[in-house]
Amino acid sequence: MVIKMAKKKKDAPITGITVSKEEDFSAWYTEIINKAELADIRYNIKGFVCYRPWATITIKKMYQKYEELLEKNEHLPLVMPSLIPESNFLLESDHVEGFAPEVFWVTEGGTSGPLSEKLALRPTSETALYKMYHYWIRSYNDLPFKRYQSCQVWRYEGKMTRPFFRAREFHWIEAHDVFATLEEAKQQVVQDMEMTYQMLQDEFCIPIIFFQRPEWDKFPGAIHTYAADALMGSGKVLQLPSTHLLGQNFSKPFDVKFVDTDGKEKYGHITCYGPAISRIYGAMIAYLGDDKGLILPFDLAPIKIVIVPILVKGKEDIVKKKCKEVHDKIKDLYKVKLDDLEGSPGSKFYTWEMKGVPIRIEIGPKDIEKGQVVVVKRNDGQKSFVKEGELLEFIEQIANNYTKEIKEEKLLDFEEQIDLCYEKDSAKEAIENGKIVCCGFCSIDKDGEPCAERVEKEVGGLVRGKRVDEEKHEFSSCIICGKPAKCTAYIARSY
Amino acid sequence: MVIKMAKKKKDAPITGITVSKEEDFSAWYTEIINKAELADIRYNIKGFVCYRPWATITIKKMYQKYEELLEKNEHLPLVMPSLIPESNFLLESDHVEGFAPEVFWVTEGGTSGPLSEKLALRPTSETALYKMYHYWIRSYNDLPFKRYQSCQVWRYEGKMTRPFFRAREFHWIEAHDVFATLEEAKQQVVQDMEMTYQMLQDEFCIPIIFFQRPEWDKFPGAIHTYAADALMGSGKVLQLPSTHLLGQNFSKPFDVKFVDTDGKEKYGHITCYGPAISRIYGAMIAYLGDDKGLILPFDLAPIKIVIVPILVKGKEDIVKKKCKEVHDKIKDLYKVKLDDLEGSPGSKFYTWEMKGVPIRIEIGPKDIEKGQVVVVKRNDGQKSFVKEGELLEFIEQIANNYTKEIKEEKLLDFEEQIDLCYEKDSAKEAIENGKIVCCGFCSIDKDGEPCAERVEKEVGGLVRGKRVDEEKHEFSSCIICGKPAKCTAYIARSY
Repeated sequence: MVIKMAKKKKDAPITGITVSKEEDFSAWYTEIINKAELADIRYNIKGFVCYRPWATITIKKMYQKYEELLEKNEHLPLVMPSLIPESNFLLESDHVEGFAPEVFWVTEGGTSGPLSEKLALRPTSETALYKMYHYWIRSYNDLPFKRYQSCQVWRYEGKMTRPFFRAREFHWIEAHDVFATLEEAKQQVVQDMEMTYQMLQDEFCIPIIFFQRPEWDKFPGAIHTYAADALMGSGKVLQLPSTHLLGQNFSKPFDVKFVDTDGKEKYGHITCYGPAISRIYGAMIAYLGDDKGLILPFDLAPIKIVIVPILVKGKEDIVKKKCKEVHDKIKDLYKVKLDDLEGSPGSKFYTWEMKGVPIRIEIGPKDIEKGQVVVVKRNDGQKSFVKEGELLEFIEQIANNYTKEIKEEKLLDFEEQIDLCYEKDSAKEAIENGKIVCCGFCSIDKDGEPCAERVEKEVGGLVRGKRVDEEKHEFSSCIICGKPAKCTAYIARSY
Repeated sequence: MVIKMAKKKKDAPITGITVSKEEDFSAWYTEIINKAELADIRYNIKGFVCYRPWATITIKKMYQKYEELLEKNEHLPLVMPSLIPESNFLLESDHVEGFAPEVFWVTEGGTSGPLSEKLALRPTSETALYKMYHYWIRSYNDLPFKRYQSCQVWRYEGKMTRPFFRAREFHWIEAHDVFATLEEAKQQVVQDMEMTYQMLQDEFCIPIIFFQRPEWDKFPGAIHTYAADALMGSGKVLQLPSTHLLGQNFSKPFDVKFVDTDGKEKYGHITCYGPAISRIYGAMIAYLGDDKGLILPFDLAPIKIVIVPILVKGKEDIVKKKCKEVHDKIKDLYKVKLDDLEGSPGSKFYTWEMKGVPIRIEIGPKDIEKGQVVVVKRNDGQKSFVKEGELLEFIEQIANNYTKEIKEEKLLDFEEQIDLCYEKDSAKEAIENGKIVCCGFCSIDKDGEPCAERVEKEVGGLVRGKRVDEEKHEFSSCIICGKPAKCTAYIARSY
């Protein structure tokens, strides 16, 4: 019976999503958001969505993993107010200029009319936190001072929004660290990038490259910005966590000083790091999912195992009893669901594949006769007949290897997606084919900006910056102006 | 050496806080907030405070316990936008009227001027959620529909604010449940109250009584409100979680309907429950703390054990080595800190008592000679000399009983704080003595409001409502108007 079902399914696969991810990524993404019940875009404010339970449970697990890692690396949690007085913003001029177009303003309280000062819904917390760091940091004994908060931020985005990828309210972690020296601050930036690889690649199975962003694309107020790009199925890159070397650009206006070992007062050197968990979640479902629906790393799946009874007339009771028995054997070890509601096995397979449950167990009368159960893995569809006595061991093996398997399959070699280009025309073609362009570029300092503007218009992509890891390729001249290339840069379309 | 120290300390106790909790609760609370580094009130928006790491870690643990319990009771988590369009508010007239004086309004976005519609910073999420429940609930199969979110809310409070107790931004959980029948909704209210007892009394050691609030003091839009009151050291009660029977008051305007088993469309019956975690935290530190500082339930302490080396000249190395050895033995079992920084043992005792670390281990040269360590419990100061080989077992025993001990000591019998009063004058005197008054009252329906206003003016307390649990006392007439008493009511001063 089971085998027959499986065959039938193979002949005429029931796939969850009506458009292919490869053919129309955008439509595919919209369908998976709806059909796996991850978010609802019908909330009546533009750019604001509701996160439904299936997404919320996974996002909570992602937060937990990230927070554990930050705490292991000596960060302590805190909670800041979500409103920031306008006067705080005005203290750092690049920052206020950069964020001004994106801020939601609270101007009224209750029925008593306008507030005495406009309050920003934080778009990021530098200007709230560093006001307090001024009080909390006194001497070298307080350094390094490493804090993080898990919270949401608001940005009045002009660009098109899309659930999780880009929204006017999103959920992130921000870590803000203060050091006695610039050298230590630079080391923190390296640690931030290491944490990003540990989380995004090892835990969430999303391959990334870190770029030092060009001068014109850095965080408002930073000395340098380092940001990870991930490549989505659409051939566009998505910016994932970024870390910023702020140096003393904020510690001076916000008066974040410490008395050093030599008895002198000095300004701290600051870094900030902002993994946007909700956006990483979006990237993960987009990157790992297939035409049947979600694929999730084992630890992040809200339910790890679903048991589907295969009912045959006259033998319902024996099957139900066995399913319950297996369920009870598993339930203290893994989050398991026995799907004993109405509905055909096929429609249940469809539902739980869509939701990305890693393991499905099917049990029918013939399996019971043979003392076995059927185990199907979501990531590769592999089907096994397992002796009941060996089931727990078999599940444990899957649990231990599942995420690794996804990673090995999915961590495509970025290099393969990169085309080396020596001319503007070939770069344009590569971009149109969904590739990332690697080329010579005059400069990612301020003086390179005119060429970057031409890249956007004439090549159709954005200059993402230069790689932070080892750069193997060298070019003699800028792909745009032909002047000597000061660096090797990467160009891609982007969300 | 250890014994000498302890004696010295007993003769001239170093207490952390300069005012006694009993004599001036308010000043004591302010000091503990500052000295234990729980919150900072210097943030430059009135009524908004920063939660520092020591408080944040405990609050996170409280959230985790509450969320686990809600999920055990079939609630699923979700995340809603924090902004609510003004038009949503206008749908339920009592609700909009009740919350209008308390709403912060977002009116501008970026540099493009006023938004087309004012957006409220949610003061509570009924009017956001039920807009979506309209889409998510279709048939009896979807019921009961139980969801919660952990989030912050904003209220433009007129009353005086105080860190954690009452602020213009606070952190809570809100659970919103929909049922097919009013009877089931009423059962949920009972479950909400049970969860409150499980959390507040059993886990957080705060004794409470549930009252059905009078008509004039219920949640705007509710049929009935049931709220827990806890008694603070000041003799004032603090409202802790409340649960509201909304019935169909919101499902009708928000069109939350389901097709019932009989094929007919019906409106759902809704309940909502709102434990304010940050406020409960405030109540907990206020209720359990003493003049040395914090006392925390074992599970909620950020650090469970601190090890303090007792250094004697010439024997520093052997003591340090032993402390490290003991630390390493404990560290995989409990969150432990070896305080090996500069400073006298006395000042370290002072610091960690202030922070409420449950167990202190002291190790000096004489202890090492005797093969023992000194163990001191924060809650009762009990000091023990423990053979090194028996230390882990000894700690385990403390860990298992610590919270229970606090509870047994601190769960004062509410009844003792309650004075039965038959006349207005004795009620006034009882309130002035920090007691709760139990008396006859004409009515907690609308018609009792004039008497309640006189209670506030002439007795100096508020009518908190009638007990939800069994009422043992009966009165023949209202303490104010002398008319026949329809119920036994409680009067108290309140935050």
